[in-house]
Amino acid sequence: MTSTLTGALFIGATRRPGTHGQILAIEAATGARIQPAFGGASPADLDDACALAAAAFDPFRALPLERRAQFLEAVAQNILDLGDELVERAMQETGLPRPRIEGERGRTVGQLRLFAGVVRDGGFLDLRIDPALPDRQPLPRPDLRLRNVPVGPVAVFGASNFPLAFSVAGGDTASAFAAGCPVVVKAHSAHPGTSELVARAVAKAVADYGLPEGVFSMIFAEDRAVAQALVADPRIKAVGFTGSRTAGTAFMKIAAARPEPIPVYAEMSSINPVLLLPAALAARGAQIGTAFAASLTMGAGQFCTNPGLILVIEGEGLDDFLAAATRAITKAAPATMLTPGILAAYTRGVAALSGHDAVETVAAGAATDLKASPALFVTDAARFLARPELHEEVFGAASLVVRCPDLAAMTAVIEALEGQLTAALHMDEADHDTARGLLPLLERKVGRILVNGFGTGVEVAHAMVHGGPFPATADGRSTSVGSLAIARFLRPVCYQDLPRALLPPELQGDGAGLPRRLDGRPTL
Amino acid sequence: MTSTLTGALFIGATRRPGTHGQILAIEAATGARIQPAFGGASPADLDDACALAAAAFDPFRALPLERRAQFLEAVAQNILDLGDELVERAMQETGLPRPRIEGERGRTVGQLRLFAGVVRDGGFLDLRIDPALPDRQPLPRPDLRLRNVPVGPVAVFGASNFPLAFSVAGGDTASAFAAGCPVVVKAHSAHPGTSELVARAVAKAVADYGLPEGVFSMIFAEDRAVAQALVADPRIKAVGFTGSRTAGTAFMKIAAARPEPIPVYAEMSSINPVLLLPAALAARGAQIGTAFAASLTMGAGQFCTNPGLILVIEGEGLDDFLAAATRAITKAAPATMLTPGILAAYTRGVAALSGHDAVETVAAGAATDLKASPALFVTDAARFLARPELHEEVFGAASLVVRCPDLAAMTAVIEALEGQLTAALHMDEADHDTARGLLPLLERKVGRILVNGFGTGVEVAHAMVHGGPFPATADGRSTSVGSLAIARFLRPVCYQDLPRALLPPELQGDGAGLPRRLDGRPTL
Repeated sequence: MTSTLTGALFIGATRRPGTHGQILAIEAATGARIQPAFGGASPADLDDACALAAAAFDPFRALPLERRAQFLEAVAQNILDLGDELVERAMQETGLPRPRIEGERGRTVGQLRLFAGVVRDGGFLDLRIDPALPDRQPLPRPDLRLRNVPVGPVAVFGASNFPLAFSVAGGDTASAFAAGCPVVVKAHSAHPGTSELVARAVAKAVADYGLPEGVFSMIFAEDRAVAQALVADPRIKAVGFTGSRTAGTAFMKIAAARPEPIPVYAEMSSINPVLLLPAALAARGAQIGTAFAASLTMGAGQFCTNPGLILVIEGEGLDDFLAAATRAITKAAPATMLTPGILAAYTRGVAALSGHDAVETVAAGAATDLKASPALFVTDAARFLARPELHEEVFGAASLVVRCPDLAAMTAVIEALEGQLTAALHMDEADHDTARGLLPLLERKVGRILVNGFGTGVEVAHAMVHGGPFPATADGRSTSVGSLAIARFLRPVCYQDLPRALLPPELQGDGAGLPRRLDGRPTL
Repeated sequence: MTSTLTGALFIGATRRPGTHGQILAIEAATGARIQPAFGGASPADLDDACALAAAAFDPFRALPLERRAQFLEAVAQNILDLGDELVERAMQETGLPRPRIEGERGRTVGQLRLFAGVVRDGGFLDLRIDPALPDRQPLPRPDLRLRNVPVGPVAVFGASNFPLAFSVAGGDTASAFAAGCPVVVKAHSAHPGTSELVARAVAKAVADYGLPEGVFSMIFAEDRAVAQALVADPRIKAVGFTGSRTAGTAFMKIAAARPEPIPVYAEMSSINPVLLLPAALAARGAQIGTAFAASLTMGAGQFCTNPGLILVIEGEGLDDFLAAATRAITKAAPATMLTPGILAAYTRGVAALSGHDAVETVAAGAATDLKASPALFVTDAARFLARPELHEEVFGAASLVVRCPDLAAMTAVIEALEGQLTAALHMDEADHDTARGLLPLLERKVGRILVNGFGTGVEVAHAMVHGGPFPATADGRSTSVGSLAIARFLRPVCYQDLPRALLPPELQGDGAGLPRRLDGRPTL
């Protein structure tokens, strides 16, 4: 297939070659550089994108909800219409296999359609109407009406590990559009071609719907200062990011130091503790070990929700668990990682654990130059508690088992953990009391608690939380997956005694037609 | 009346004399120091309070909602039961007159009862249930359930200008309790006696309801480092603050620099633009001028929503407006301010405007040593835009009129403003088109837009927003007044495939009994 890629920036409706450095994609499987080159954005390019986004904000958010929903659906359809060129380019740039990319495309399209439904539902507006009480004593009550409005233009930083679902038209962009926010995407340099194709799908929908061009821009940035300038730009009002703790906390600092600080929604770092409770372990240690290894090695372990920490109380079944996990891990084929940089970081992380005096290596796959192998390590609660470096994420298929002499030690280990995206409990009915005792602690530490499964495979749903206390995310009050993700890009505005003709349509009269609170009472 | 005050700290259930410096209240009307002395908290006192708050968190949040609601109502009743001692002490410490203090007590009690209703309603939990779809292709969907949980112990800093409604048991404390968060209050040093009395009412409710003592602590702090240490304490998970921009931004910096950054809800600085549109101004300039002066001078202008900026298009009625406002301001009696420090800052602010080369003084009340007089200044749009220092709040009854040659100039002035709590439009029907054109800009700049009134007098209601983009507040996604204030202290948690017996009661079965979303559909 002949590439249709141009390597140009998307500055609103203009395709402009970037001249500030350049990026070449790397074929993940071979390490070879791929044409074409993608030109990096200059500060002037960034300035233009932000100016267009600011100009687009008011007209975009003023669109009728139905029109905004249709725009999201058009983006989804346009992504499907890219056909196999998108799938093949994404496979080439990421090393991920076809079923995974096709599945992720389905997820991305599904997310956009989910948010179309969220927009039509209107619940995200949180409409509230407290009608005037002119005769109230001692003072009358004015007419008060509330709705959520979008925060303003949003900067989105694509993630390397989900080239579609957490990238150019991924969850951050979909939820920001749904809220009514223009988006400036900084494309991830590991999949610039995939990014250009998807950007084309978004830009086509913007044009087809006659939206202001600044609703969407996308830049490539070879220069880290340009990415940081995007976070610092006064026209940007929120940031969506998925990536490393280093980059995420750097963005948090920049955002906090702005003359007008803004929220950063960075999803950064999680080791996702898995708790093996005694009855379950005794009953099916081997089975859990095999399932764990499958979750660990899936996609070369390149998931935010990868099970990086196993907490287990010494007892029956532990040897079976370790033996089964070791068997599966030792047999696992080496896997291509997303980028040479991620592979190098993984290799360093595994080497640090292998050589760590408080850790034993129990399983490691065969090593190769270009591919990563899974690895499993063991320590105990006392040593884990004493060595904070063991609490850090190794991105990839590496996991650490912490042997706990008793429940108190397991509890102490959980208490010592930083915030996490997920915690998984493997348990049987006889473990219920133990689990019940742990739940309040887990609720304080994580965004999602799951039973007899693993955190990998994040359902895009209304009740999903893909978030958690720092450093799992920058802002534990939010989720980046599922319909609640729209809440990140909204703020409430109150209208007092506005004449009906000036009120937003959804707040006129008694607001009929959308879910709302009348005098505090929910009304459909 | 004999004072029952002791000056002791409230460290959980223990009344402990503070030994780290001391605070004496000042009688606002005379400047005289009043007994008893209030002992300042040491770092060890603070540590104890935070440890108790952390220990109280899980049991407090596990209370049934009905019990939590009753606790809030008991606090309200206990405040009323303090009787006249509370009113008289608050009058003495703040210089505010009896009707104002009694009114504020009613507001405080009303807020606590409002939040009891919010707790019973349960909507704040944002319950979501996406039932399992075991037969879904290609993969089954797990059972997913979501609820909001409280963020953890909250630090509350009382405000000087609302010794009851924004203080020890004010809106921040009421909404944090309603969310299920223990509270550590740092009492405002300007009304320590009022604070002790109210703390007694809260502590009595904690004891009567058999709650863990750490649900409520209150410290006095003579040492600024202790207040800052409260924000930095790792057991504190959010901060509620109303006060100066200097203190608020200092807390924001401390919170952002913590190993685990936390949200700060600081309500800080606002000049609350009032827009006089042409038809209204021509029709009733004098009437608006008189009403404006009444709002400006109410309570010595010591409101966050005080009208500090008047934007007006040159034309018919402006002279009438200025003449009427001048008449009222010149006649206004000098008023006692809350503290000598606030009076001194106000005097400095007024002097700076009086001597400013870009400003003319049009009205100033008679000056006295111990009381403040209102003041009104005038400039024009060009000079206002050129001099950023004119955009800063002068806390008290001072206001600046900005003459705009046309609507474009008025728009440019609004665009140049920082975030604000409120904007008020004075308008008639002939002004509707002008107003409609300004609304999108105002929505970007403020949390509440009101028509033919002034921002003073903030209704405690479901549709109220007392918030706004920085620096009006630290976090423009929130409100500190009204039922939505509870959202500041919540975060979502998802439960995946939890056995029914382990689910929170409100998420069992189909969650009947409380408002919820089933598969995304709102259900009552």
